[in-house]
Amino acid sequence: MNDEKIRVAVVGASGYTGQELLRLLAMHPCVEVVSVTSRQEAGKPLVDLFPRLKGATAFSDLHFMAPDVDAIAATGATFAFLALPHGLASEYAEPLLERGLKIIDLSADFRLRDPAVFEEFYGGAHPAPQLLARAVYGLPEFYADEIIAADLVASPGCYPTSILTPLVPLLEAKLVDPGSIVVSSLSGASGAGKKADTSLLFAEVNESIRAYGAPKHRHLSEVEQELSVAAGETVTISFVPHLMPITAGIATTIFCDVPGDLGRVSGAVSTALASKYANRPFIRVLGEGQFADTKNVVRTNFVDIGWVVDHRTGRLILSSAEDNLGKGAASQSIQSLNLMNGLPETCGLLNF
Amino acid sequence: MNDEKIRVAVVGASGYTGQELLRLLAMHPCVEVVSVTSRQEAGKPLVDLFPRLKGATAFSDLHFMAPDVDAIAATGATFAFLALPHGLASEYAEPLLERGLKIIDLSADFRLRDPAVFEEFYGGAHPAPQLLARAVYGLPEFYADEIIAADLVASPGCYPTSILTPLVPLLEAKLVDPGSIVVSSLSGASGAGKKADTSLLFAEVNESIRAYGAPKHRHLSEVEQELSVAAGETVTISFVPHLMPITAGIATTIFCDVPGDLGRVSGAVSTALASKYANRPFIRVLGEGQFADTKNVVRTNFVDIGWVVDHRTGRLILSSAEDNLGKGAASQSIQSLNLMNGLPETCGLLNF
Amino acid sequence: MNDEKIRVAVVGASGYTGQELLRLLAMHPCVEVVSVTSRQEAGKPLVDLFPRLKGATAFSDLHFMAPDVDAIAATGATFAFLALPHGLASEYAEPLLERGLKIIDLSADFRLRDPAVFEEFYGGAHPAPQLLARAVYGLPEFYADEIIAADLVASPGCYPTSILTPLVPLLEAKLVDPGSIVVSSLSGASGAGKKADTSLLFAEVNESIRAYGAPKHRHLSEVEQELSVAAGETVTISFVPHLMPITAGIATTIFCDVPGDLGRVSGAVSTALASKYANRPFIRVLGEGQFADTKNVVRTNFVDIGWVVDHRTGRLILSSAEDNLGKGAASQSIQSLNLMNGLPETCGLLNF
Amino acid sequence: MNDEKIRVAVVGASGYTGQELLRLLAMHPCVEVVSVTSRQEAGKPLVDLFPRLKGATAFSDLHFMAPDVDAIAATGATFAFLALPHGLASEYAEPLLERGLKIIDLSADFRLRDPAVFEEFYGGAHPAPQLLARAVYGLPEFYADEIIAADLVASPGCYPTSILTPLVPLLEAKLVDPGSIVVSSLSGASGAGKKADTSLLFAEVNESIRAYGAPKHRHLSEVEQELSVAAGETVTISFVPHLMPITAGIATTIFCDVPGDLGRVSGAVSTALASKYANRPFIRVLGEGQFADTKNVVRTNFVDIGWVVDHRTGRLILSSAEDNLGKGAASQSIQSLNLMNGLPETCGLLNF
Repeated sequence: MNDEKIRVAVVGASGYTGQELLRLLAMHPCVEVVSVTSRQEAGKPLVDLFPRLKGATAFSDLHFMAPDVDAIAATGATFAFLALPHGLASEYAEPLLERGLKIIDLSADFRLRDPAVFEEFYGGAHPAPQLLARAVYGLPEFYADEIIAADLVASPGCYPTSILTPLVPLLEAKLVDPGSIVVSSLSGASGAGKKADTSLLFAEVNESIRAYGAPKHRHLSEVEQELSVAAGETVTISFVPHLMPITAGIATTIFCDVPGDLGRVSGAVSTALASKYANRPFIRVLGEGQFADTKNVVRTNFVDIGWVVDHRTGRLILSSAEDNLGKGAASQSIQSLNLMNGLPETCGLLNF
Repeated sequence: MNDEKIRVAVVGASGYTGQELLRLLAMHPCVEVVSVTSRQEAGKPLVDLFPRLKGATAFSDLHFMAPDVDAIAATGATFAFLALPHGLASEYAEPLLERGLKIIDLSADFRLRDPAVFEEFYGGAHPAPQLLARAVYGLPEFYADEIIAADLVASPGCYPTSILTPLVPLLEAKLVDPGSIVVSSLSGASGAGKKADTSLLFAEVNESIRAYGAPKHRHLSEVEQELSVAAGETVTISFVPHLMPITAGIATTIFCDVPGDLGRVSGAVSTALASKYANRPFIRVLGEGQFADTKNVVRTNFVDIGWVVDHRTGRLILSSAEDNLGKGAASQSIQSLNLMNGLPETCGLLNF
Repeated sequence: MNDEKIRVAVVGASGYTGQELLRLLAMHPCVEVVSVTSRQEAGKPLVDLFPRLKGATAFSDLHFMAPDVDAIAATGATFAFLALPHGLASEYAEPLLERGLKIIDLSADFRLRDPAVFEEFYGGAHPAPQLLARAVYGLPEFYADEIIAADLVASPGCYPTSILTPLVPLLEAKLVDPGSIVVSSLSGASGAGKKADTSLLFAEVNESIRAYGAPKHRHLSEVEQELSVAAGETVTISFVPHLMPITAGIATTIFCDVPGDLGRVSGAVSTALASKYANRPFIRVLGEGQFADTKNVVRTNFVDIGWVVDHRTGRLILSSAEDNLGKGAASQSIQSLNLMNGLPETCGLLNF
Repeated sequence: MNDEKIRVAVVGASGYTGQELLRLLAMHPCVEVVSVTSRQEAGKPLVDLFPRLKGATAFSDLHFMAPDVDAIAATGATFAFLALPHGLASEYAEPLLERGLKIIDLSADFRLRDPAVFEEFYGGAHPAPQLLARAVYGLPEFYADEIIAADLVASPGCYPTSILTPLVPLLEAKLVDPGSIVVSSLSGASGAGKKADTSLLFAEVNESIRAYGAPKHRHLSEVEQELSVAAGETVTISFVPHLMPITAGIATTIFCDVPGDLGRVSGAVSTALASKYANRPFIRVLGEGQFADTKNVVRTNFVDIGWVVDHRTGRLILSSAEDNLGKGAASQSIQSLNLMNGLPETCGLLNF
């Protein structure tokens, strides 16, 4: 049985995304984790760093190894998740591809089609522009066919997933004015990563609510790229992320002008979402008058979407929620893995 | 000395606003609390309900009494804070005014000049329209002179204070497009009141982030009333409040179009705020590139204001923070009390 | 396939235990939930109350029904979980047993062998003493054989599970002085239930740490019953529970005198635990010098156990952690369901 | 007026204790802060690091300076608070004393009378044993007379204050068995300091409850020293601290055997506490059947104390609560400052 399992490596496994990936892979019926790497934890048993995973028998003998591409390939892995900082992911993607592994990258390195945009938002030249054309944006609800055929998937950022899933179908249906979009997103603290930074200490984040990173957060680059594809024109939006005293979860509220008949917009929104997400099990359309709550989606691969029409101002207000480490990172990347292996995309991911 | 203190009653003292009022009044050098009322707690020692106040010697013999206007007047109170639900406050305001007390009302009953707007937003006819002309909107940074002369002050709502303080000076200075305003506010759970409602239980609110109350939250009525005064035209805005897993604090993020020269807007914003709030000790202008954090204002009477200019979209993004129970309710109402008594408005309120 | 699934009813499904049961049963490969009851929610779709479960296709048509025993039996359920208040559970257990269902009761009604002890700790005569001899205490690590054969299982309380799992093996091995046991337990707020009680509001529980319920918490009765069985003598302990600002989880710290050679006690503890819990997949013995963290066990069926020897005072200090709604309630009761149906006890419960 | 204020330096002002000291001193009517030091923040405006203090006019020009003893003395400070790590405090205490300043040290360096005990618990030889005899243990409820006369005050640790205040009067009155004492303490995360340590990140501490540091936490040394003084014999106790997901506050639960008549112990406890703490405004004796809640004491200098008698086991269970940064550190040290300057000990500290 084990021989038929997909052999995967998790490169850069010591952070929050790596931890969530491993937690989910521990319960995945068709995956065997054969390699976990971490420069600083090399040699340590996996469960020492992640005591939550104690009792996962498949992991009981797994140790962190140094992130050497030959060593990773030698473990027999055929897929590698890269949970590395942007810039660093590129260094591993190319040699691992050369060694025949397929790559699902959770960094920003391969999400942008235009290396100039990468340079504008991330600073410095793109480290591997030759790979960009080969990469697929790993949002399965939009690019399932491309993901199935890909060997390099760029799994989307956490904020982008929560913004794109409600907006793309409405832009495609020409229901909202692309120039009017304003987004306020609220993210749990794990989104900032497992960094030894005093501004992320419990005593700093607890009982604190604050905006940050505006007006030009890096995730804007991929959001606007995908919104522009959907709208068929260049879309520029305003976006303010906020840091929340919760461990995981993103709630996003989107305001946009509705050019058409206000009385019909709610029905049209409902139709556009239902049509786009028919047979997409991980998008839960809550309906008009409903607001999405992070509490209902954390530790799942769901995005919840609701909306209200603000008749007084002629705006549509959208509300979405997801787990920043789940659909915003780890579980979404496993959804791609499932597609790339001919499995149902829900395999191992129908958690509640 | 005690004879010279201001004798105040707190009517409806058992909720979160009442509790915060009493906490602040316990430390106020010029106030004596002579009467605290609560229908359901009548007869009970104050410190039994608010054990935090044990040790406040002035409160050691204070008991809740039933909210009878003659009994309140008999305690010698010359000022009454009304911390009652909307609709109920009106029932106490008039008879207490008749008995010679001055009123600082923390409900919504006297904030709106137009009873038709009250009816639209709160449902049902206004309970005491004859008093509306007598009432002053108790935002001291805007109406200090009127508050000084008033005998009926309508202390503003929590969301309105956080929205009006950054926006009013900019509308007065014609810096922003009044039709473009979009507001996302994030409030601590105490803002929902001390209600036995399962949706407010710890296990419901903790680890949860969600919007609610849009698109027509009641506070919009007073926000738009005051924004319209500032703009000299009718202003309608979009507003989405969110419930946060913190006890107290509101962070507000405001998006608005800037009609003029983007390169000059930040300087103009800075000038407008500095000019409006010169000598207003409770508004802390943080400056461009700064985001306000609820952590820095809870248990104070401060509003912190920062902003960024979004050059990509031509929008100004404002950020404010306050304590919903402080500057958003209790301490702001004491600020009015100070003004009405010829005290420095900071008296008893310069807390950090 | 569905025909072979175990058909279960969840009686009293609207509280936190019911919600966790349903969350877990939604992912259980061998269970079909055929009936969920709630007096106050009767008629409502299940997912309206538990939006987290939206997307669980097996639940999409499930509605709450009134808790009528004939109606429950008519759904074809062969097992019923009772997630009801103590006293009320008895009223359902007997008629459901008569109709041929097997019962797993999560209340306190059938945990005590002696109805006089029930009366002492819970007040009032036991409502169904004739059933006590038929009931099995549903702690599978101690009573697996009895559970397999039972038709009435009394699933243990949350605090008891966290106290008994570390202590019972040591009392059986005569390693600790039964008269010296002192227990400090720390529980998440969900342990208090989904009650409309202002003392459980977010703004009350957040940023608050406090003891409660000592010195004679109701759970002491079953704890002392089982400790006495293990020790072979009557055991009386001191126990102080504390309310914590977390949603779920219990951490328990136990102090006890060690009569024997201090130098050997750690090894003996290790041996006793390893021997008792060999082949018991849900007890994770962390070892000496380790403290259990609720973070590692919430949403699982694990109990983590660590200890230190306090050589200065001659005491052993034990540390355990579990999920109060998981191993302390819902998942433990499913563990019994598995045993009663000849399934591996881990079926549907190996979550991380 | 300013000339008559006490001129104080805060040495090591960038951590949580320093921040709380400065917050309280900003509101103290008789203190002028003339110097704040921080090696890493030298040159930076104070309010840049502590934006909460913006608006404290006395602080508006204050900048961090490097911790040079001559520079500190040159600011005219006559008192210095040392908020430094243990070991480092000694390096500043002696030269500052030589320059005529009086010292209130918040580290552990001068709390222990016996340098051998320091060496046992803190590792390494005591850095300034010659000063130990000169130092006074700064718990004003026990040592007010000595503090008044002192020039070197060792302000107690956070856990010790919460343990000593309930226990010392009972040991003095011979009400409890000194050999039976078991303590479980629960502390907010600020107690761990403002350290760039991933184990203290929000995402690690939130939704986590765990013991740590047992069985030989450093604070045991001063606790046992003072308990032994009170008991008139050597006292050794068991102590387990726990890390809590709250910013500030310590709740302590103490179990001890009562040798005498159980029926009389509660009255005797009440008498002993009332007698010891008559005229001690910061100890609030809540009475029998009451449990102390951190929520009621954070940001104050109060210790709340309650108790129950466990008649079933013959034990007394004490409950105390304090703010670890307040009475457990900063405000308690200001209480000593008040005493050393002939001020009422409540000066600037009667906060609610």
